[in-house]
Amino acid sequence: MEMKPQRVIADLCRQFYHQGWATGTGGGISIRENGRVYMAPSGVQKERIEEDDIFVLDEQGEVLEAPKKPGLKVSECSSLFYNAFRLRDAGAVLHSHSINALLVTLLSRDAVGGVATSKDVFECTQIEMMKGLAGHGYYDTVQVPIIDNTARECDLADRMADAMKAFPKSHAVLVRRHGVYIWGRDWVHAKTQAECYHYLFEAAVRMRQLGLDASVGEPHVRALEADKGYAAVVASASAGGGKR
Amino acid sequence: MEMKPQRVIADLCRQFYHQGWATGTGGGISIRENGRVYMAPSGVQKERIEEDDIFVLDEQGEVLEAPKKPGLKVSECSSLFYNAFRLRDAGAVLHSHSINALLVTLLSRDAVGGVATSKDVFECTQIEMMKGLAGHGYYDTVQVPIIDNTARECDLADRMADAMKAFPKSHAVLVRRHGVYIWGRDWVHAKTQAECYHYLFEAAVRMRQLGLDASVGEPHVRALEADKGYAAVVASASAGGGKR
Amino acid sequence: MEMKPQRVIADLCRQFYHQGWATGTGGGISIRENGRVYMAPSGVQKERIEEDDIFVLDEQGEVLEAPKKPGLKVSECSSLFYNAFRLRDAGAVLHSHSINALLVTLLSRDAVGGVATSKDVFECTQIEMMKGLAGHGYYDTVQVPIIDNTARECDLADRMADAMKAFPKSHAVLVRRHGVYIWGRDWVHAKTQAECYHYLFEAAVRMRQLGLDASVGEPHVRALEADKGYAAVVASASAGGGKR
Amino acid sequence: MEMKPQRVIADLCRQFYHQGWATGTGGGISIRENGRVYMAPSGVQKERIEEDDIFVLDEQGEVLEAPKKPGLKVSECSSLFYNAFRLRDAGAVLHSHSINALLVTLLSRDAVGGVATSKDVFECTQIEMMKGLAGHGYYDTVQVPIIDNTARECDLADRMADAMKAFPKSHAVLVRRHGVYIWGRDWVHAKTQAECYHYLFEAAVRMRQLGLDASVGEPHVRALEADKGYAAVVASASAGGGKR
Repeated sequence: MEMKPQRVIADLCRQFYHQGWATGTGGGISIRENGRVYMAPSGVQKERIEEDDIFVLDEQGEVLEAPKKPGLKVSECSSLFYNAFRLRDAGAVLHSHSINALLVTLLSRDAVGGVATSKDVFECTQIEMMKGLAGHGYYDTVQVPIIDNTARECDLADRMADAMKAFPKSHAVLVRRHGVYIWGRDWVHAKTQAECYHYLFEAAVRMRQLGLDASVGEPHVRALEADKGYAAVVASASAGGGKR
Repeated sequence: MEMKPQRVIADLCRQFYHQGWATGTGGGISIRENGRVYMAPSGVQKERIEEDDIFVLDEQGEVLEAPKKPGLKVSECSSLFYNAFRLRDAGAVLHSHSINALLVTLLSRDAVGGVATSKDVFECTQIEMMKGLAGHGYYDTVQVPIIDNTARECDLADRMADAMKAFPKSHAVLVRRHGVYIWGRDWVHAKTQAECYHYLFEAAVRMRQLGLDASVGEPHVRALEADKGYAAVVASASAGGGKR
Repeated sequence: MEMKPQRVIADLCRQFYHQGWATGTGGGISIRENGRVYMAPSGVQKERIEEDDIFVLDEQGEVLEAPKKPGLKVSECSSLFYNAFRLRDAGAVLHSHSINALLVTLLSRDAVGGVATSKDVFECTQIEMMKGLAGHGYYDTVQVPIIDNTARECDLADRMADAMKAFPKSHAVLVRRHGVYIWGRDWVHAKTQAECYHYLFEAAVRMRQLGLDASVGEPHVRALEADKGYAAVVASASAGGGKR
Repeated sequence: MEMKPQRVIADLCRQFYHQGWATGTGGGISIRENGRVYMAPSGVQKERIEEDDIFVLDEQGEVLEAPKKPGLKVSECSSLFYNAFRLRDAGAVLHSHSINALLVTLLSRDAVGGVATSKDVFECTQIEMMKGLAGHGYYDTVQVPIIDNTARECDLADRMADAMKAFPKSHAVLVRRHGVYIWGRDWVHAKTQAECYHYLFEAAVRMRQLGLDASVGEPHVRALEADKGYAAVVASASAGGGKR
């Protein structure tokens, strides 16, 4: 339990890799403990990180200790991690590229005249796993804000901060066509929140494949007609234009 | 084979975690042996449980030995586990949050005027794996009762007991939008039953995605029109109301 | 490479368990070497088999050595394994309960007046992995016979033998709503054939989910209208009768 | 980090096997380092390769060192690996039979009068993981050429070379109904590129299952009508002919 933060980060990055949250050098986790912030380097194979590869920063984001291995640099999403440290006093933040997280950002939208209008929130209700999320009961609606992606990851920081302020109950921010940031009071809590959120994302995607809508609970469960909602509207509206 | 129950629980929790049955601190297993009941603590990472974390209770549910680690408490679903010990003389009970288990509780239903009427039983027939379930032959119909979920897990106990009495052949009770409880005469038997049930749940979900209904066997196999059954009825009926 | 057959069987059973081929005590592998047949016991957890649990039989099916552990008995599908030893001079046979194998037995069929007429062969063409199957080129059509399942596994033996004679090029026989038997000249060959067949089964199921038919190659690739082929015929024809 | 190339190849083949890239003896990786090329043998179980099984060749393709184990021969796709060494100065090339790679080669096409006209490129846009590909930004379109498969793998070499010249930005060539070749400046880079490409392939297939088209980004996201595009055209046009 009392492992060094560097050891925890290396172990969790390996685990996240095998869960599909951190392939292609993406994803990762940062821990804040006793006034120090521990962070994996950018652009490296996450399942092969070792303790010595971890950066140590102060709470203002200044690097205190850099790995001896040449060529390593601090993660580009450093400012996103600091959002959770500063705005929520988080003890750990993780970033995942899970494909289910990516897919739910595309399911939550409306269509107006062939152009998709982003609905900027993921919603689900009445799924037991919601109870694992801090502050949520079974009959509540879990809401996770969705922000649009940017060409450079560091440009997401302000959008993420705004979303965190607008959704104070959420421990996560989804990034459209990208993934999700999730935090907690320490690494155990952050990881647990992450498992619950990823479970809900997968359940919502798989419910959708069966024609069901995760945002509507009993007794007014809403089933989706086969691709008649959003999909058909956009498809018919855009049939004339666009490449095929 | 003659491992301590504490060791077995720790090993199985780790295995269940990696099978997607026990993420987000949910799920777990309890063993009853020689008048004692062994149970994992509530709300902890199930893949990291150690022997010393396991509670020992008597058959009335009183704690005999508590883990030394501070802050641990007995699982909230303790009364659900005791249902299987008392009503079925089970030697082990497990609880799973498998997404396939959750999904089959949503597939088994009828629609009346836009409101979903729960059909409170999962059914399948003519799948070889059914033979692994105690008391079932290939041409039988496996029936697993589905009870509605509650805001607090402990409130499920009476519903579960009623369902167990109504379906005496079943070694499992599904909980809608939640998961499943499965038991057996010892941990090997409970685990084997659980693997068979989870296989059947997955097969039923995947058959549904291919337009087939697992509750109808040869030669009158019933294929489902694409989202025409339940889904279309509810969707068209509810098109006027509800949020979109 | 020169491992004892008992060791190989224990290792492969563990591997097959984790691939979803041998859960719920189902599935397994038998090896024939130097006039002896090695076989796992029936009804045990396949991922926990040890060398000492393996039976040794002669080529007539008589048990030469039984495990010391009490209560173990020879697999009920023993006669099915011997089909491959006798009719094909196989050195190893395996049995899998893979859900993809089960699903392809349900995809291959026609519908006549609401009753499903089994089409008793799985077919695919123009998939590179076919080349891994002995005697098949890329432009051939792989054919795997499908036999109907029976209440008792041992009653399948004659059907399996007939199918093997009718499809001399196949190294596999599918059993409807059950799984598949696959063999080869030794365990490496049998396992390799099995990986190729399972890949083809998964590809066929996933192509079907995307509206494509694995039995038709270029340039006349046939896409399936959404559930219009078999599914719609049966569904509309059976709408009047049967339970819903 | 400074492992022998033989050790790296054995480790990565094991990893690729478990990721579904290299089952049935298919798939693999070759490394070029200091004027030598290291390559796994053909037709062997990729998850059980050992250091001593690896061939060493020179840059002209001549074998310098062959494994002592009898019966091993150089991979039939040797000439395909050399394409990447020669045309792109690659330090490593891998070959994957991933089913998602296979499926995207079937999704990218048009239909003319019931005959499928291959659209010989996979495209996607606005998915964060694209940034992991050398030379691609978030708003670009990733293009991976698709070449038709051949009866013998070695006959693919010229087609692959042509595709590489036509798509100079791509680090990958897809082979229809077969898989994909992916390369990089060293094994770490090749593996990272491969993880990004496989992520994009999976995302595209799963978007398709939800009625979305990965080749169209915001704000003109295009949803696909349920099997109305390519599928319906071919299905209706071919309804008269071909086997059903």
